[in-house]
Amino acid sequence: MKLFESSRNDDYVIIIGCGRLGANLANMLSNIGANVLIMDESRESFRRLDSNYGGLTVVGSGTDFDKLREAQIDRASAVIAVTNDDNTNIMVAQIARELFSVKKVIARLHDPECEVVYQELGIETICPAVLSAKEIDKMLDNFQLTEVSE
Amino acid sequence: MKLFESSRNDDYVIIIGCGRLGANLANMLSNIGANVLIMDESRESFRRLDSNYGGLTVVGSGTDFDKLREAQIDRASAVIAVTNDDNTNIMVAQIARELFSVKKVIARLHDPECEVVYQELGIETICPAVLSAKEIDKMLDNFQLTEVSE
Repeated sequence: MKLFESSRNDDYVIIIGCGRLGANLANMLSNIGANVLIMDESRESFRRLDSNYGGLTVVGSGTDFDKLREAQIDRASAVIAVTNDDNTNIMVAQIARELFSVKKVIARLHDPECEVVYQELGIETICPAVLSAKEIDKMLDNFQLTEVSE
Repeated sequence: MKLFESSRNDDYVIIIGCGRLGANLANMLSNIGANVLIMDESRESFRRLDSNYGGLTVVGSGTDFDKLREAQIDRASAVIAVTNDDNTNIMVAQIARELFSVKKVIARLHDPECEVVYQELGIETICPAVLSAKEIDKMLDNFQLTEVSE
């Protein structure tokens, strides 16, 4: 059961990076009623957001303290770092976690090698390549089951 | 129930593209005993494979018919196109499906817009950004449930 599935209006989620993943996530969360702010260094990147995206957009770097304060990071329930650069994501996540005490911090890592270290620091990580490989493996499994039962 | 979970030795899976996703998948399938062949235009990309990867590697393009025949594509149970280029993936998938009658064809698409069209052609697609956004959404849900029950 998802208690907050259709009413997330107490949430305040900050997303750093408006690439494909950031934009997708912002659209998704905005659609289910969460308060979303998305930050990216390039204004151009916000064209990826749906026309009915109901959140805020801020041009700036996720490692810029002033911008983060301006975005009221201290009242964010979650910060999600999904720029295309692993090092930036880790830095943003550490700033959010250590300096602003954000409880839920998630960073996208292309290179999953350091995953364990970050989990110890209270930072959850997501690796699209690993996730996609697992999903394809599942698709192959389902295929085989169908073949067998035919 | 996964009938073939630990014994996939009748499978023959061809993966086109040895980037992060391709290499991850090749390692994963090789580990569970599937017969895997991975093809990439750059020999350098095979360094992403585990040292104990037990499959084949072929330097070449997934749209090169001769290379595909050499790889015995006609006896592949699945072809998975995961180069970094959506158009190449679609082309590989269509060749596998239409010309070599491969039953299970999966293509990675960065841009999910054309997903429906390809599903009609019998090509399954996977979009890492959409998949990752859904996974992060799940992680946020779990967090909220924990917060509520505390």
